[in-house]
Amino acid sequence: MTSLSSLPYKGTRDYYPEDKRVQNYIFETWRRVVERYGYQEYGAPMVEPLEVYTAKSGKELADEQTYSFVDRGDRTVAIRPEMTPSISRMVAGRRQELGYPARLYSIANFMRYERPQRGREREFWQLNADIFGVESSLAEAEIIGMAYDTVKAFGAKDDMFVIRINNRKLIDFVMSGYLGLDVVGSQMMMKLFDRRNKIDAEEFERQAREILADGADEGMRKIGKLLDVTSVTSLPSSLQDSTLVEEIKELEARLLKNGVKNVKFDMTLMRGLDYYTGTVFEVFDMHPDNNRSMFGGGRYDGLVGLFGVESIPTVGMAPGLTPMELFLRSHNLLPELAPATELGIIIVDEDSVQSALDLARTLRDEGMNVETDISGRKLDKQIKAAIKKQLPFIIFVGENETKEHIYGLKNLATGEEERLSAERIVSKIKDYRRGPVDDDAEL
Amino acid sequence: MTSLSSLPYKGTRDYYPEDKRVQNYIFETWRRVVERYGYQEYGAPMVEPLEVYTAKSGKELADEQTYSFVDRGDRTVAIRPEMTPSISRMVAGRRQELGYPARLYSIANFMRYERPQRGREREFWQLNADIFGVESSLAEAEIIGMAYDTVKAFGAKDDMFVIRINNRKLIDFVMSGYLGLDVVGSQMMMKLFDRRNKIDAEEFERQAREILADGADEGMRKIGKLLDVTSVTSLPSSLQDSTLVEEIKELEARLLKNGVKNVKFDMTLMRGLDYYTGTVFEVFDMHPDNNRSMFGGGRYDGLVGLFGVESIPTVGMAPGLTPMELFLRSHNLLPELAPATELGIIIVDEDSVQSALDLARTLRDEGMNVETDISGRKLDKQIKAAIKKQLPFIIFVGENETKEHIYGLKNLATGEEERLSAERIVSKIKDYRRGPVDDDAEL
Repeated sequence: MTSLSSLPYKGTRDYYPEDKRVQNYIFETWRRVVERYGYQEYGAPMVEPLEVYTAKSGKELADEQTYSFVDRGDRTVAIRPEMTPSISRMVAGRRQELGYPARLYSIANFMRYERPQRGREREFWQLNADIFGVESSLAEAEIIGMAYDTVKAFGAKDDMFVIRINNRKLIDFVMSGYLGLDVVGSQMMMKLFDRRNKIDAEEFERQAREILADGADEGMRKIGKLLDVTSVTSLPSSLQDSTLVEEIKELEARLLKNGVKNVKFDMTLMRGLDYYTGTVFEVFDMHPDNNRSMFGGGRYDGLVGLFGVESIPTVGMAPGLTPMELFLRSHNLLPELAPATELGIIIVDEDSVQSALDLARTLRDEGMNVETDISGRKLDKQIKAAIKKQLPFIIFVGENETKEHIYGLKNLATGEEERLSAERIVSKIKDYRRGPVDDDAEL
Repeated sequence: MTSLSSLPYKGTRDYYPEDKRVQNYIFETWRRVVERYGYQEYGAPMVEPLEVYTAKSGKELADEQTYSFVDRGDRTVAIRPEMTPSISRMVAGRRQELGYPARLYSIANFMRYERPQRGREREFWQLNADIFGVESSLAEAEIIGMAYDTVKAFGAKDDMFVIRINNRKLIDFVMSGYLGLDVVGSQMMMKLFDRRNKIDAEEFERQAREILADGADEGMRKIGKLLDVTSVTSLPSSLQDSTLVEEIKELEARLLKNGVKNVKFDMTLMRGLDYYTGTVFEVFDMHPDNNRSMFGGGRYDGLVGLFGVESIPTVGMAPGLTPMELFLRSHNLLPELAPATELGIIIVDEDSVQSALDLARTLRDEGMNVETDISGRKLDKQIKAAIKKQLPFIIFVGENETKEHIYGLKNLATGEEERLSAERIVSKIKDYRRGPVDDDAEL
């Protein structure tokens, strides 16, 4: 028989313990942030009927990017490519029972059939946090404030990222009322704006003129006034009297009051998904090596209503694991993460196995995370394995230790070794767990 | 447009916050147990090439129960129906880099195309914990000891469950050497033994005689001696001199020394998956309403070797979420689980919104989980929503509170209300979080 490949399926990733620690660190930090705001965790199935996505996620996502298939009972289903339709379905299913505003979050994996590239995998993880039942921009202010905190919680500075905002209704008004485009032209122009950072200025102009057709010169002059606007107040005067502009100003003021300082209005921000109905936003990494959108969100008031109940106003966001990890690495914000295992017991000889196991049980009862090397190998091999596993401490258990109940505790990072009782080992490890005491902190 | 169904896909489950809390409680308890033993967490992709399962998981699982499909690049893949092949692949992929014994665990979801029934869903969650690199039965003793702890950690008593053990090599010897069956007959008899608790005694005998064919009377007499053996020492004498019996005795003795008291040898225990090579075990719920296998595990020494590297001895287990939840509910072991949100702020009037938001930020900075009712609805609706969300406390913020910085804190469970400063609210909630002080505890 030929052997099987040990590589993961294309575009997916194996998380070995050191990778999983990074993942858990990011997840736990996010979890802390959203729970501070009162979000409660939920879970949804990893597959949904495909129609849940074709309805509103957008043609590209549903038709070209889903992992969809026909099940053994002839139902067409898809591995979830995103969470928004699932949580909208769940909220619809208990519309009456839930208390509003309902604040819900999940941390889950998704699959999209895309060309794998840096920061983009076919299987990827996201936090999804959504607030249901708030019509006013207080909901946007909360979600964007929380988006800000999900980055700041890692120790990020305000100049490391920027939050760009726009509004779908304003976009629609700009496309039809300001640029005079029809429905098809509007769609094409929105897609072009969305690609603006991925193509050069000449190509942008060429395609824009094609869409504008007859009124190309006038249209290009108008577009020119939109492109580099960084504040809603500097939009062309013909757009200034829109109530939408008032709404955006109000949101910006609210965010500032809530301590969110790096928000920028950006008329070219579109967001790909079809279901957004109002505010949209994106968090951009400002690192020169990694200048890209990290994640986004916005208001989508119509999605719950697709599931046979009255609609509910909703605002949400979905930070992704891999973009966040890249952000943290580029800005040097990722701490060293130790394994959960705190102590390895090296067994000196076969006769000491049971006393090593007994000691391990005693230490576990005290709340220590302890492994025993029951491989029966020589001491040097056992020590090497402990180092590979990045264990912070090891102790040796042999004939003498079993008799005297005093063990050599070795710190594998510093090489220090002390002879201690089980009790003292427990307090040593508890000190270590609390983190190193920085003697120079006050100097 | 017709509306979409709000029901989850058949055989999958929506976890609303109260369900998710139960899930998290079980996961966190398991996590604590396996980390105590030095297991480190990993993650694997939700899809694998199908051949990873056809190789060793067993024909029924791979051919009939996987969610398999052809991807857009013509690869045949499957949503994982179990974790063992994935972790074996991952260990093979870093065979040299890992330190042994390698102790690895994950908590993940899986899909199998089965008829949904009580305690069995198409999408299900499992803990998987495996130890790689130990040939001796010390590995079995550790995994079975840990299986015991994953149940005991919830407060279970020894008589609520039993751990049945057997050995695949002994099974093979019994089928061929003792019952004289050929390969096909052995396979059929193993499947029949496996179904023994699902059919009645007559049907069992009818099918057994069919498999035994010529020597049916003699065979039935021999089978009779096997069926109700609960200790390896009461096996028929012709099986007693097998070294396998010695191994099982040694394992039982080791488990007893490690404090695991409810282990029973069971010659009819088979375990469905093809990859087991030695010890197999199953944890059975003894509750009369729920008398069933909760989970199992065993030794599978050959799986890593399928991925182009030398094999590694392995023992593992895989407790499932739903069987564990049923166990806890039958035995009344599930505690009440409060939401993570500790406090809801009721906003008395529109002018108090910003001061309510400011207070929420202050309380969050002190580590509190606080939500604000920004729905703009009347007081009674806000309070009803807080009750629906099972928030333990609410406070009211209006004109007076904004001026005086004293807030009415209401305990929604007891109805008690006190007027307190923000500082005192923080310490009240911290007391609540530490758990109620039981005044009668010592009486």
